[in-house]
Amino acid sequence: MLAAVLHEPQRIRIDELDPPEPAAGQVRVRVRAGGICGSDLSYYFKGKSGDFAVREPFILGHEAAGEIDCVGADVTGLVRGQRVAVNPGLACGTCRFCRMGMPNHCLDMRFMGSASTFPHSQGMFRQFIVVGATQCVPVPESLGFAQASMAEPLAVALHAVKQAGSLVGARVLLVGCGPVGCLLLAVARRAGAHRVVAVDLSGKALQVARSVGADETVNAADADQIARWSAQRGTFDVVIEASGSPAGLDTALRSVRAGGTVMQVGNLPAGQSPVAANLVMSKEIRYMGSFRFANEYAVATDEIASGRIDLSPLMTHSFSLAEANRAFEIAHDRSQSMKVHLSFD
Amino acid sequence: MLAAVLHEPQRIRIDELDPPEPAAGQVRVRVRAGGICGSDLSYYFKGKSGDFAVREPFILGHEAAGEIDCVGADVTGLVRGQRVAVNPGLACGTCRFCRMGMPNHCLDMRFMGSASTFPHSQGMFRQFIVVGATQCVPVPESLGFAQASMAEPLAVALHAVKQAGSLVGARVLLVGCGPVGCLLLAVARRAGAHRVVAVDLSGKALQVARSVGADETVNAADADQIARWSAQRGTFDVVIEASGSPAGLDTALRSVRAGGTVMQVGNLPAGQSPVAANLVMSKEIRYMGSFRFANEYAVATDEIASGRIDLSPLMTHSFSLAEANRAFEIAHDRSQSMKVHLSFD
Amino acid sequence: MLAAVLHEPQRIRIDELDPPEPAAGQVRVRVRAGGICGSDLSYYFKGKSGDFAVREPFILGHEAAGEIDCVGADVTGLVRGQRVAVNPGLACGTCRFCRMGMPNHCLDMRFMGSASTFPHSQGMFRQFIVVGATQCVPVPESLGFAQASMAEPLAVALHAVKQAGSLVGARVLLVGCGPVGCLLLAVARRAGAHRVVAVDLSGKALQVARSVGADETVNAADADQIARWSAQRGTFDVVIEASGSPAGLDTALRSVRAGGTVMQVGNLPAGQSPVAANLVMSKEIRYMGSFRFANEYAVATDEIASGRIDLSPLMTHSFSLAEANRAFEIAHDRSQSMKVHLSFD
Amino acid sequence: MLAAVLHEPQRIRIDELDPPEPAAGQVRVRVRAGGICGSDLSYYFKGKSGDFAVREPFILGHEAAGEIDCVGADVTGLVRGQRVAVNPGLACGTCRFCRMGMPNHCLDMRFMGSASTFPHSQGMFRQFIVVGATQCVPVPESLGFAQASMAEPLAVALHAVKQAGSLVGARVLLVGCGPVGCLLLAVARRAGAHRVVAVDLSGKALQVARSVGADETVNAADADQIARWSAQRGTFDVVIEASGSPAGLDTALRSVRAGGTVMQVGNLPAGQSPVAANLVMSKEIRYMGSFRFANEYAVATDEIASGRIDLSPLMTHSFSLAEANRAFEIAHDRSQSMKVHLSFD
Repeated sequence: MLAAVLHEPQRIRIDELDPPEPAAGQVRVRVRAGGICGSDLSYYFKGKSGDFAVREPFILGHEAAGEIDCVGADVTGLVRGQRVAVNPGLACGTCRFCRMGMPNHCLDMRFMGSASTFPHSQGMFRQFIVVGATQCVPVPESLGFAQASMAEPLAVALHAVKQAGSLVGARVLLVGCGPVGCLLLAVARRAGAHRVVAVDLSGKALQVARSVGADETVNAADADQIARWSAQRGTFDVVIEASGSPAGLDTALRSVRAGGTVMQVGNLPAGQSPVAANLVMSKEIRYMGSFRFANEYAVATDEIASGRIDLSPLMTHSFSLAEANRAFEIAHDRSQSMKVHLSFD
Repeated sequence: MLAAVLHEPQRIRIDELDPPEPAAGQVRVRVRAGGICGSDLSYYFKGKSGDFAVREPFILGHEAAGEIDCVGADVTGLVRGQRVAVNPGLACGTCRFCRMGMPNHCLDMRFMGSASTFPHSQGMFRQFIVVGATQCVPVPESLGFAQASMAEPLAVALHAVKQAGSLVGARVLLVGCGPVGCLLLAVARRAGAHRVVAVDLSGKALQVARSVGADETVNAADADQIARWSAQRGTFDVVIEASGSPAGLDTALRSVRAGGTVMQVGNLPAGQSPVAANLVMSKEIRYMGSFRFANEYAVATDEIASGRIDLSPLMTHSFSLAEANRAFEIAHDRSQSMKVHLSFD
Repeated sequence: MLAAVLHEPQRIRIDELDPPEPAAGQVRVRVRAGGICGSDLSYYFKGKSGDFAVREPFILGHEAAGEIDCVGADVTGLVRGQRVAVNPGLACGTCRFCRMGMPNHCLDMRFMGSASTFPHSQGMFRQFIVVGATQCVPVPESLGFAQASMAEPLAVALHAVKQAGSLVGARVLLVGCGPVGCLLLAVARRAGAHRVVAVDLSGKALQVARSVGADETVNAADADQIARWSAQRGTFDVVIEASGSPAGLDTALRSVRAGGTVMQVGNLPAGQSPVAANLVMSKEIRYMGSFRFANEYAVATDEIASGRIDLSPLMTHSFSLAEANRAFEIAHDRSQSMKVHLSFD
Repeated sequence: MLAAVLHEPQRIRIDELDPPEPAAGQVRVRVRAGGICGSDLSYYFKGKSGDFAVREPFILGHEAAGEIDCVGADVTGLVRGQRVAVNPGLACGTCRFCRMGMPNHCLDMRFMGSASTFPHSQGMFRQFIVVGATQCVPVPESLGFAQASMAEPLAVALHAVKQAGSLVGARVLLVGCGPVGCLLLAVARRAGAHRVVAVDLSGKALQVARSVGADETVNAADADQIARWSAQRGTFDVVIEASGSPAGLDTALRSVRAGGTVMQVGNLPAGQSPVAANLVMSKEIRYMGSFRFANEYAVATDEIASGRIDLSPLMTHSFSLAEANRAFEIAHDRSQSMKVHLSFD
């Protein structure tokens, strides 16, 4: 089988590998489409994501969909040819966080396409993967593979918005309108937010934000506007920080009203960032974070399949496996692209 | 001016009264449309609502919209002819509940069209009312008066759904598909509920429920279905009880999953009802109630004006003031009507 | 070994049985003391508890402590002679409620001394029991066995008070001052409650309530007092219902303030009880329940061992195994006893 | 009357001023004792506190108790000679935060001894003050004035612990054991915390922490210990940050477990501090702040008067008004003092 293997920064090679065999309880999936995420870009361009460095040839990718190719022993309910979205994470089920209902903090999590352990947990950008049967969520034949692969980032957005509490009647600010930011916006819109304002530095990103439901968009360079939001102990009931930049977090903390919530979804730099943390105290802000997702993967799949959330404005490009390096270049250029997919047909 | 005055059960007379004069901080509104609510029906047919009996000639109505007719001293921002929705409640602002941010529990609340005090707080089914300027929320010229008057029941629905916590990804059951039930359904749908099932005894009501977004409707007589929901410690994350009947509450408590939420919005009979309260303990149910609304009135008005919530499937009939008694008869007949309006043109 | 076997209502016989053998991961515990709980009394006097009827010879008891007698394969950290408190429940760890962090709602829970399944899960009132090693919590040599066996009802109280949210600064009403009620009172006192008032019909119970920290006690027959608490939309921020009677729940719902919490811990009759459920709506009460405990057992053991909670005022009687029937008679008589223990020495 | 007036940093002069006269609804209080707080020290040594600079002769002090001297018109329930603790804050009651039940964020707050407005709101370190009658909480004759003046910092601690949610069964870390830190520790202990560990750089502070209830104390220089707490996604359910230093916040964010709460009470430097904010996301920390207090002042007074919280270990020094400069010097030296009081006899 063919796989997109990262051998050094900015150099993916299409290697021929032996296809893996499923053990009991596992299935082999023929991957048909995969989305490129921010952490993939970070591994590709910087050789690391957060604190995790790439230390061996590494297959990226944790957003994918495909078809069941064959099933291992003791697997029921899945047959060859079934179209599925694949949850990249498998929690242990027994550690203290799993027991508390927080599998996203599992102390023994296996998350595909992550260099957090060594040997690395290889990813999904290849023709065949072997995963636990429970990681596969059936989707209807009518759903495109690239659409189905959006279940993973949508699950991230659903988890984050759910953690923020009820948005019914709330004024919401979204800081950062990349692919995850725009998914967050679509979910916040559907979660009853009364008014959603979106901020970004990129005009292209703000344009997409409007197409997925922003009531108003503001360029992040408009310091006067942010100062107005900061006055009188702040404006927004909930701010979603999806830029992952200290400047974005600063806007968030200044713009939220006293007693409001700032939800951190963007991946801030490892180590320490400059933060107006005294505002957390003086405005009694609930500054919270959302990490991956817990039990939202199947919900996300169903929301896409039912057409309740329209993701098409976000899906801007698709490339064949052979064009993988070019796909990463385009995905990196925010002036042209939002979500970029690889096709494995 | 003309007013619809209830003199005895099922007998409204159109009386000629002197129009009231606004004091400082008040305005006179020319009422143009008003909606008939469940408590209005209860006063009309039974002479009481809950524990409150009608003890004097009584003008019903607490859902209305109209135009500013004239303004008292010290009123700014409102001019003659401005189209407004009118919040029927005025909280004192100083009692312990007002200080806790719960004005709907104000110990000195003036709520129009309520017999909870004596003399009664007269209602809005008349050509002119005088209210505090802060009770008037401007709406655009393009919005119909009957639509604008829906702000009150929509505020009730927004308050209830907000209290229930985040519905993102949740399976929701709605018990009771009258006008408030269907508004709750529309709000729950917009608040991110993953799946909404609606239950009622009336086929007509279930049909409207589907038109405002129910994924599935079930007749309340289908005991097998309710037994299936009850198995394995319950099915739904959130149940909204909008029937106000002990049988509906029973369905709610049995169908909710362990650790789930039952939100009581329907007006149960005064005094004691038979309730499977041991389930609250053994399933650790959060059984909560929602009463009127707090600060959701302006949000409701804006949601209607922006077209985000389409209420037209609920607005089934309109009658002139002269036909008031007939309007109440029709509003009482659930096989024909949902929300019935009076027009004061 | 000897065991207290219930053969029919009010008739326990001391039978000679073969001691059980521990499998891998299990231990055999020599039981030294066990407390009689309300559900034990219900099985003993009525032949059932809630919906669960006794259908075979049945060993009661789910509050016990003893010493490790021998350990099965693969058990580490426990040796013969170690003094332990024994958690009566073992959750499956894989059902949907276990995955949500709610093991007390496990769909395959094995809870000792419960007739909820058939064959029944036999209880702890015998000289030897076999349990999973994880069910044993070591306690110091200095701690008495009867004291250690109080970990189970204390865990119930800790779970309930934790679910009620922060009590810091709160006015708390406790309805029902039996053994669990008084434990709840002691925990609420230690959880920062500003003022705790206790209600019961029994003067003896109120006396114990004062000894474990009630600021004020009121006889439940004092209707005037309850009416005063009901005025002005209620008095108490949190009410803990530990009587398990509809009358107690009525007092709770009337006395709680608008927006307050009523926590149901007492075991109400199966089926439907008369409840002033309309108050849940009109006062926006959070009426919640607490069922057994989740991860509080080890905490409870440690709180007792450290002497932070003094349970001695509650431990009124102790009987030998041979006197089991008399022990149940005394435990049933609230005018004389609070918590009654059996000793297995 | 005499007043301690700050004319420039480190120079308080005892000036003779005219005593103020109470208007309607106000009272004049003869101040008898006042405590020196961290913000007083900051004004005294740096000429500013956070962003607020001293711009005119300024009377410090916002923790005080005394006796009613005379009452203005329309004041009932307070008579000359009544011993009272004085709440330094007066909220407007009508702004949007007051209406939301958050008077501590009042947009028109009058807080005595604060330079946040100009002219400054003069403080309480003088023989007579005039305040609203509602700001005075009666205390028994048996309570010392210095003890009564502790109601203000205790209210701060009660508010913070209440915001953190239930501590029942929780493992709590306190970072920073100054006067407010030790009050927080005493409140957390009383709020049901299962285990409280305290961290500080000062051996003297850790000694006081043990005397008010810490189970364990650790020197902040012990990096190995903090690294151990950080492992496996963290250790403590709740961390209370009371040091106001970025290093303390770093310890807090590293030591809290995934899904846990960090409550910021210490006053961090104005502007931006270096913060490991990516941990908020990757561990889904609830990082919250607590600012002053809302409705906890009367509760605090009563907790002190009832003897439920013993503050004597914290009250280390008392000086006469004439020795004000020396009092500030001692209060600044953490190796000798905790809370220092001025006496106005």
